[in-house]
Amino acid sequence: MRIPILKLKEYLLVSVQIELDDQTALQFQEDILNKIHEEGSRGVVIDLTSVDFIDSFIAKVLGDVVDMSNLMGAKVVLTGIQPAVAITLVDMGILMHGVPTALDLEQGLEKLQQELEG
Amino acid sequence: MRIPILKLKEYLLVSVQIELDDQTALQFQEDILNKIHEEGSRGVVIDLTSVDFIDSFIAKVLGDVVDMSNLMGAKVVLTGIQPAVAITLVDMGILMHGVPTALDLEQGLEKLQQELEG
Repeated sequence: MRIPILKLKEYLLVSVQIELDDQTALQFQEDILNKIHEEGSRGVVIDLTSVDFIDSFIAKVLGDVVDMSNLMGAKVVLTGIQPAVAITLVDMGILMHGVPTALDLEQGLEKLQQELEG
Repeated sequence: MRIPILKLKEYLLVSVQIELDDQTALQFQEDILNKIHEEGSRGVVIDLTSVDFIDSFIAKVLGDVVDMSNLMGAKVVLTGIQPAVAITLVDMGILMHGVPTALDLEQGLEKLQQELEG
């Protein structure tokens, strides 16, 4: 199963609304990088509002997506990380330093705009 | 399988990126109406860029979504209808009169904004 990627002007929007198993996460990584390349996107918002659980592998894949996109010239903001997910991540020692985050899709887009202007 | 629905400010964005069989389409109809109700959305853009084929049943479901959403107070714009899909629809005599359409997601959002202001 693939996670749909929406193009909105110079940004890509992704709302993860299925369970992220390892295979889906890796496919998503490939898809988003290809889409950034195709569309020449300057920024990406990945919304995790519907994600109940992130393990260390998925966290690494998401962190890698941010680094890889940055290398390609696109900023990534993760949004909507649930309290339970934040607790699990920090308990596992995964602090995702250097990964911009925001509360929801709207604030993610605003943050992206600020980062691209600033 | 469910079609993800994104909330962006007072709008909902949907990008249909899987094949629309009858069951999926009906589930989508229910999901989008519930989401409009939950979020109090004023408008919806349904992007069909990735849809290669629409039969008469799916066309009816989409038309119904527009009418039902209108009844609930939300405007719907369909975007990204492919040439082949447009040809098939008109060949079948399905003209989708009264359904606002636009070229892509951005133009759909603009159209929605115009309709809500006008």
